[in-house]
Amino acid sequence: MNLSKTLTWAVSALVMLPLVASANVNIHEAPSRPKNMIIMVGDGMGPAYTSAYRYYQNNPDTEEIEQTVFDRLLVGMASTYPARQSGYVTDSAASATALATGVKTYNGAISVDINKRPLTSIMQMAKQRGMAIGVAVTSQVNHATPAAYLAHNESRRNYEEIAKSYLTADADVILGGGQKYFSEALLEQFKAKGYQHIDDFSQLDSITKGKTLGLFADVQLPWVIDQQDSTQLSLLTQKALDLLSQNEQGFVLLVEGSLIDWAGHNNDIATAMGEMHGFANAIEVVEQFVRANPDTLMVVTADHNTGGLSIGANGEYAWDTSLLQGIKASPAALAEQAIAVDDWQALVNQTLGFDVTTEELQRLSNARMQGKSALETSLKQLIDSRSFTGWTTSGHTGGDVQVFAAGPAADLFKGNQDNTDIAEKMMSLLPRSQ
Amino acid sequence: MNLSKTLTWAVSALVMLPLVASANVNIHEAPSRPKNMIIMVGDGMGPAYTSAYRYYQNNPDTEEIEQTVFDRLLVGMASTYPARQSGYVTDSAASATALATGVKTYNGAISVDINKRPLTSIMQMAKQRGMAIGVAVTSQVNHATPAAYLAHNESRRNYEEIAKSYLTADADVILGGGQKYFSEALLEQFKAKGYQHIDDFSQLDSITKGKTLGLFADVQLPWVIDQQDSTQLSLLTQKALDLLSQNEQGFVLLVEGSLIDWAGHNNDIATAMGEMHGFANAIEVVEQFVRANPDTLMVVTADHNTGGLSIGANGEYAWDTSLLQGIKASPAALAEQAIAVDDWQALVNQTLGFDVTTEELQRLSNARMQGKSALETSLKQLIDSRSFTGWTTSGHTGGDVQVFAAGPAADLFKGNQDNTDIAEKMMSLLPRSQ
Ligand SMILES: [Zn+2]
Ligand SMILES: [Zn+2]
Repeated sequence: MNLSKTLTWAVSALVMLPLVASANVNIHEAPSRPKNMIIMVGDGMGPAYTSAYRYYQNNPDTEEIEQTVFDRLLVGMASTYPARQSGYVTDSAASATALATGVKTYNGAISVDINKRPLTSIMQMAKQRGMAIGVAVTSQVNHATPAAYLAHNESRRNYEEIAKSYLTADADVILGGGQKYFSEALLEQFKAKGYQHIDDFSQLDSITKGKTLGLFADVQLPWVIDQQDSTQLSLLTQKALDLLSQNEQGFVLLVEGSLIDWAGHNNDIATAMGEMHGFANAIEVVEQFVRANPDTLMVVTADHNTGGLSIGANGEYAWDTSLLQGIKASPAALAEQAIAVDDWQALVNQTLGFDVTTEELQRLSNARMQGKSALETSLKQLIDSRSFTGWTTSGHTGGDVQVFAAGPAADLFKGNQDNTDIAEKMMSLLPRSQ
Repeated sequence: MNLSKTLTWAVSALVMLPLVASANVNIHEAPSRPKNMIIMVGDGMGPAYTSAYRYYQNNPDTEEIEQTVFDRLLVGMASTYPARQSGYVTDSAASATALATGVKTYNGAISVDINKRPLTSIMQMAKQRGMAIGVAVTSQVNHATPAAYLAHNESRRNYEEIAKSYLTADADVILGGGQKYFSEALLEQFKAKGYQHIDDFSQLDSITKGKTLGLFADVQLPWVIDQQDSTQLSLLTQKALDLLSQNEQGFVLLVEGSLIDWAGHNNDIATAMGEMHGFANAIEVVEQFVRANPDTLMVVTADHNTGGLSIGANGEYAWDTSLLQGIKASPAALAEQAIAVDDWQALVNQTLGFDVTTEELQRLSNARMQGKSALETSLKQLIDSRSFTGWTTSGHTGGDVQVFAAGPAADLFKGNQDNTDIAEKMMSLLPRSQ
């Protein structure tokens, strides 16, 4: 960590903000140093995703294009490149390490440096200062991003080790997927440490205090687009806020819209927009919390871009959002169903919500004969070509991501910064060591 | 124009800035209302271009990744969608109209509304207030972006009409390409209006005051990557500043890095990075002017994204900047030369600056037999695949663009906004009508 930079930010937070706040009503409403901090990561959510989401959400019956929560909260951007040995394009582990510890590392590293030595995370620092800490994510809870906040490991792929290491992370709230990584024996150890364990959303209401390990899916949570509503991450976020805010010395919470990235890797625009909606809803939950608790800072960013998404493709100056809005299931779920029924063409037409041409149906039919995976790919290609959606890669891309913030010291995050700066700025806002 | 919004911005500029400035040394150094305004447009320069340029510029011999002028000046982002009838993806004419007049229009429109009625541009308003106005661009001076600032036409394609209409635009400085659109007869009319006409960079020094029409190429200026240096746009920008700043009542200047977009349409990363470098140099010229003249506001943005560029492609987590840094000519120039010589393989190897494999040479050879255009395409594909550069389209894409600013009222442009807001904010900062 660059100490002089950190000091400058801390001083800026203390000196500059009261000046700006004094233009408003009451300086005491907006303290310069937050009691609570919430970092929210849209995994893979490059700038094209938030623009696309605005148009995907647009109500075609009104003249205006409605603002999204991202538009309300934008303050800056961040570079995401990993340690030099990994080039310019980061993976989720290196970028989550940067966001959690303020240090660049190699792709694959979970909060260890390039020499595989553990790095102190903001969660560890917060714990030392008496704060509560937690994570709420839509991937397995031991996936790269939450792992970088709660664990140290030379490889993100060591899922079992990372899950076990959570026993000593002393997190107050761990919510997400990943049942398969938590054996009965391991769960018993968590209970012995005082954790309540739940595995169904219906149990959330019964938890009103205390340490909580909630695992709601074998691996990741189901796609938002295949759910009745888009509230999964919102419910986990609200519960985490309810539990963590009981700590009088404040809290640090990580919320991740993990599956935006997974849909991006799949080059699946309909599913990606569903995940964006779930994440946007969770941000709005946090935004409400910050309004009700002006001593809370929220920072939202992405760890990198995924898929090379573009709004418009193949020379067309268009993006058909009404077509995307009408799609009622993920291509994966639709392919699975369409493989199993004879009248698959009616199912496809009804689920996609737009008229599929004879030629397009023939292509889908050929793919269906090759199996579920080929049909899913063919459905995604059909949606891309009809909606004018572009992709360049099944992996990540190296462009800067956006930074959004509200609450005390939100101005610290404005303009251009590096992803390590985000961690350093947040660390500079922690209470002093006790 | 939304008057209440404009009023809010004007009040913000007057009320908020002195507060922030008072944290610094001298409130009088940073007036809340600028005397001069410079709007700079990187045509097609989506966020991926500024990130790519940072890595393209990176000195591999230093540990740090050096900041660019874009990193220093970033304040926000802007949406770019055109009037509803044209969908979500804008062309340069509609977006330039938005930036010049604050009004959304159809793709192709040059500062006329959706009913083809002329819209008042910031340049017209500035002239009414006694300010000097000018444009300095790398395209023909009557191309879409400068045209939207100086003319009104139902179609950007009416190049001859637009050039003629400049006779009555009363611009003080018009610098760029486009000799073919200005006949001897038309040039005589400009001279009769008091314009000095020059057509070579060597004549720039001889112009020290007065109205100037400088046309330095038949159509657009040559690619930066094919030039000895990258100073073309910087020289035009500096001359425009020298001439316009002689007006005691201030000026409004448009500077456009026009050919970033052209390289993007061509999906030509090496040439695009050269154009980015030329534009960045021009921004630095303006940044120096703002430092020396703290009564000047500079705003830099893009009109849209071009090409769906991504840093990394085809599943690779990499972008090879050192390969790109070594390329010594545009693929267009290289193809033209390589068609004409027998020992084309040595020329290609030497110009590209990296070792071309036997298989790659075979592909180039096959393309060369089909002619210059096929060879150019093959060279670009080779560069893309070796550098891991991705593209999704030969056209534009609809993601938000960045906004950069410095000088008085620069804070007005922070956060998220629409491209029409940029015009409205700048208009709100003009001196009151006389
Ligand atoms: Zn990620
Ligand atoms: Zn353009």
